[in-house]
Amino acid sequence: MPAISVSNRLRRTPFSEGVEAAGVKAYTVYNHMLLPTVFRSVEEDYRHLKEAVQVWDVACERQVELRGPDAGRLMQMLTPRDLRGMLPGQCYYVPTVDETGGMINDPVAVKLADDRYWVSIADSDLLLWVKGLAHAWHLDVIVDEPDVSPLAIQGPKSDDLAARIFGDKVRDLRFFRYDRFDFNGVQMLVARSGYSKQGGFEIYVEGGKHGMPLWNALMEAGKDLDVRAGCPNLIERIEGGLLSYGNDMTRENTPHECGLGKFCSTQTAIGCVGRDALLRVAKDGPARQIRAIEIEGDLPPCDRHWPLVAGEKQVGRVTSAAKSPDFGTGVAIGMVRMTHWEAGTELAVHTQDGPRRAIVQEAFWL
Amino acid sequence: MPAISVSNRLRRTPFSEGVEAAGVKAYTVYNHMLLPTVFRSVEEDYRHLKEAVQVWDVACERQVELRGPDAGRLMQMLTPRDLRGMLPGQCYYVPTVDETGGMINDPVAVKLADDRYWVSIADSDLLLWVKGLAHAWHLDVIVDEPDVSPLAIQGPKSDDLAARIFGDKVRDLRFFRYDRFDFNGVQMLVARSGYSKQGGFEIYVEGGKHGMPLWNALMEAGKDLDVRAGCPNLIERIEGGLLSYGNDMTRENTPHECGLGKFCSTQTAIGCVGRDALLRVAKDGPARQIRAIEIEGDLPPCDRHWPLVAGEKQVGRVTSAAKSPDFGTGVAIGMVRMTHWEAGTELAVHTQDGPRRAIVQEAFWL
Repeated sequence: MPAISVSNRLRRTPFSEGVEAAGVKAYTVYNHMLLPTVFRSVEEDYRHLKEAVQVWDVACERQVELRGPDAGRLMQMLTPRDLRGMLPGQCYYVPTVDETGGMINDPVAVKLADDRYWVSIADSDLLLWVKGLAHAWHLDVIVDEPDVSPLAIQGPKSDDLAARIFGDKVRDLRFFRYDRFDFNGVQMLVARSGYSKQGGFEIYVEGGKHGMPLWNALMEAGKDLDVRAGCPNLIERIEGGLLSYGNDMTRENTPHECGLGKFCSTQTAIGCVGRDALLRVAKDGPARQIRAIEIEGDLPPCDRHWPLVAGEKQVGRVTSAAKSPDFGTGVAIGMVRMTHWEAGTELAVHTQDGPRRAIVQEAFWL
Repeated sequence: MPAISVSNRLRRTPFSEGVEAAGVKAYTVYNHMLLPTVFRSVEEDYRHLKEAVQVWDVACERQVELRGPDAGRLMQMLTPRDLRGMLPGQCYYVPTVDETGGMINDPVAVKLADDRYWVSIADSDLLLWVKGLAHAWHLDVIVDEPDVSPLAIQGPKSDDLAARIFGDKVRDLRFFRYDRFDFNGVQMLVARSGYSKQGGFEIYVEGGKHGMPLWNALMEAGKDLDVRAGCPNLIERIEGGLLSYGNDMTRENTPHECGLGKFCSTQTAIGCVGRDALLRVAKDGPARQIRAIEIEGDLPPCDRHWPLVAGEKQVGRVTSAAKSPDFGTGVAIGMVRMTHWEAGTELAVHTQDGPRRAIVQEAFWL
């Protein structure tokens, strides 16, 4: 693999020192920031994530803060999810769309107060879209990127590790809820969330200076739990059907194509910029949709779209793929036309190393 | 150096095949796309760029296309540069600002017609900002990312190489002008521009399928000119004072702080979103500004802000730095407060490897 060239433009994080000390082997870039991708190997990291507990530098989940009397109104403009019932203390996964209903991000919104939200973003400069809308509509709201850097605790032993730092009360947190917990006299926002299916928390660290003290405390407290530095794992996230914005969905796709219709209440999401464009697809359903795809044989890195083919005809494409040790097969995420999306449909997938046999699955590998 | 993890999210380009065949050693990520940074070594690539001719995959300079009756009005909203005199056939460097006058990109605008522009962007999702404004203001304009990928020819032998492909008429192109030239029956937009001080062209390749045929034709035609695959070179661009958005300037900075006041006509740029916010700084000048900085001694990679210090007090920071073979010293770009920006001012710069002696320069190394 070629190296990554470092520069200021690929921002370091408050946890970079810990990541480097842990021997990071590879990075990707996410929101103009370094995101570790490999420590020992993708397979070793995967095994460890499923059995123990890891601390992840996900500072690249940058926050877009909305603050002011119109924050709630602006927040609803961004998403077809109906936010009227959202309360402080809750996190909502909010597919975010442009005026054509195309996805421009799939962040988690954190409601801090009726007039204050953090939007914990995937890999696009959502800040610019939100600022553009707020400015042009003369909304009474400040939109900015605060000094907030998420650190994740993920894996089956997450509750044990988190309890040692934040106290046993952290065990009571429900999924996609947050509360504030003390760490060395600093109140930290801790949510039960994260980009794996192994359970865990995300700590929204306010102020970069608190980054390494928290990282070090977690590493120290978790020694007997075999805590390690980790990162979102390609294999585990595909098995679990966790989509990646920029990989599995882009501005070309509606939330409904991405299987995110359950997060949309297009009829009642009044004020959502893309609402009109989405009404028809919300009612009739999409003509293509995300599916779990099993692929047989060896797999090269999925660094380009792999066409899914029935006979001579392209009927979709695979956008993420990896070999799963636990399931003994290639696991993949693809977008498939409705003519061929039934479970059990056999297709060919064209990788850069040649064609492979692919089978549409009923569900992800959970 | 750690490796880069490939994925669909880090988009390949129409020229990736050529880049790989040429033995690319490192990448950065720019506009969610792979940008090569090293072929032989940064120093060897530098020497060759200054003596021969290189072909650069700069497809990551994505285009934001504005098309429709309001395209010109929207284009002027983006920048404090007065665009009234701009004609089809011209390229303008246009610092682009938000409503606070903070820089959100520094693209090159290409005027295709009175109602059609390409904005060839630096590393931020300017598309989202432009779409947000166009939507909220109900402008009659389509904003999209077309299938256009720039390929650069850079180096002192650029004219000779370009003439072999596009004919001798390409030699007559003036700086920041473009024209259309035939390549195998396809009309290609060729501009005299590029991110080096060694001269050359940028070809805006419309349609990915034309990418590799053009790449291969250039490599074949330039054999006796010692043409090679190359890329923007860290040392050469610092010597030449070519700023990098995300490195040397961010949303924190006004164009005037970046020494780009000469591209701003803030008084007359009516309709520019950041105009009101910039009027005062345009009149009074900024309190800090970009300067060329010479640094003595060895330099680690400049992957974080290096504080510039006078005595105990921080008076600026260095954001890009490299060792220059030709000038036998460390060359750097920094932002310095007006109290310490006079040429000859001696400062200390705090790198991750310790302090170094730094001297503010009168000008870049040209």
